[in-house]
Amino acid sequence: MKATRRPGPSVRTRVREITGAGEREHEDRLVTEEPLEIRLAWPGTPAHRVWLTMRTPGHDFELAAGWLFHEGIGSPTTVAYCTDEDLRPEQEFNVVTATLDAAPLRPPAGRDPALSAGSSACGVCGSDSVDTALEVAAAIRWSGGPVDPDVVRTLPGLLRERQMLFARTGGVHAAGLFDAAGAPVVVREDVGRHNAVDKVTGARLLAGSSPAEAVLVVSGRAGFELVQKALAGGVGALVAVGAPTSLAVDLARRGGLALYGFTGEERTVRYA
Amino acid sequence: MKATRRPGPSVRTRVREITGAGEREHEDRLVTEEPLEIRLAWPGTPAHRVWLTMRTPGHDFELAAGWLFHEGIGSPTTVAYCTDEDLRPEQEFNVVTATLDAAPLRPPAGRDPALSAGSSACGVCGSDSVDTALEVAAAIRWSGGPVDPDVVRTLPGLLRERQMLFARTGGVHAAGLFDAAGAPVVVREDVGRHNAVDKVTGARLLAGSSPAEAVLVVSGRAGFELVQKALAGGVGALVAVGAPTSLAVDLARRGGLALYGFTGEERTVRYA
Repeated sequence: MKATRRPGPSVRTRVREITGAGEREHEDRLVTEEPLEIRLAWPGTPAHRVWLTMRTPGHDFELAAGWLFHEGIGSPTTVAYCTDEDLRPEQEFNVVTATLDAAPLRPPAGRDPALSAGSSACGVCGSDSVDTALEVAAAIRWSGGPVDPDVVRTLPGLLRERQMLFARTGGVHAAGLFDAAGAPVVVREDVGRHNAVDKVTGARLLAGSSPAEAVLVVSGRAGFELVQKALAGGVGALVAVGAPTSLAVDLARRGGLALYGFTGEERTVRYA
Repeated sequence: MKATRRPGPSVRTRVREITGAGEREHEDRLVTEEPLEIRLAWPGTPAHRVWLTMRTPGHDFELAAGWLFHEGIGSPTTVAYCTDEDLRPEQEFNVVTATLDAAPLRPPAGRDPALSAGSSACGVCGSDSVDTALEVAAAIRWSGGPVDPDVVRTLPGLLRERQMLFARTGGVHAAGLFDAAGAPVVVREDVGRHNAVDKVTGARLLAGSSPAEAVLVVSGRAGFELVQKALAGGVGALVAVGAPTSLAVDLARRGGLALYGFTGEERTVRYA
């Protein structure tokens, strides 16, 4: 039997670097990407698969807890690696089971289109999406007032200092919760930018704390889904290094979330 | 009744730019993000929803055709905006119906985890994902031999020159098919990097051509899903501006796809 080896956040590989001057082979580090299956159980209902995502291994319980919370499904009492006997060793750390102490607040994967296949839902548009997202906005929101824009401009730099995996691989996003004075609360990295946000919220939940901090900072752009997660997590502001989208700005304005894009030391742009 | 207005690829908005020296309000352009529902019909089976994605409006038929092809479902004979009477005007351009002339080659959303909810599938791991992806690799592959690395290094610059929407909004990804000499065949932009790849493949399919070109160039990183689409489209090489992931490299090596990352004028790194 192959020994069970827990996958690390990065792996080594041989690569060939090519410049105008020639080629050379050397060792490089890649960010690890592996599937994670999230199973959900609650009283009277056995564990069943509700989500599958590609992610960077590590902080998997946080990822599951944060994803379930952002989806409005609930906050699990326990999250554990699956111990099914039918799992092969290389699958063992890619399946987690989250348990709720009551039925889900919203149907699992309720926003998943595939589950609506064949339904009579008559169409989609941006404002429908905004309405749905507002339904899962957090009951507990950060209430400490606006964050100083001078603090906002420092946050991507502070996040970057903590992006250890990015420094090694150059291929990974990060998300961080910061307090109103710009002090980091928790920072997580992942190959998927949505996962990194799920992980920071999950880290707070599993520590028994509220994720409703002053600011959520993300290393990339601010699309609709990231604003949705920021609202579901209850943060006061979302600060992105990159550009926001039209629907992200609509949702932030409707939801009362401060949204900053193109943020760096020199400047930031406030969209909502 | 509100007049039906087809959404454009970008929208104007008022923003507040904040620097150390002060604040000023000005107009900015945001990339448009709107949901697109893809419905699928085939003989004996009425149209039903198979996918929902956030995307930038424009080239929607290409997006649907390319997505269906990359999923191994089939190549539609027609794609059209839905004309259901129950669609509100703002939904009208967010729903397309694709029609196949025979049953799907693979079940729609067959790779969608939600459809497997409650199944007895016993787990997931990277090599399972690679095996599944190889099943939908294109029957017709590019067969013209390797592309000169000196050409590879010029491609992101050539793509960038054609990223009109990026120049206006700074918030959008691009994908382009290029021939072996580095001439662009088709370039598309979208808020979602996967959508941009679906659109270039769909553009070729709807023009009656094979998407199996020499090189697919993407403006971001090369994750597992992009390599999957490159293999399904049958291209000879995938060239990324950013980093690849561990699973992307595994899949490219197994599938015989040349994979370049961190590509710019000065250098490129060959991973597979």
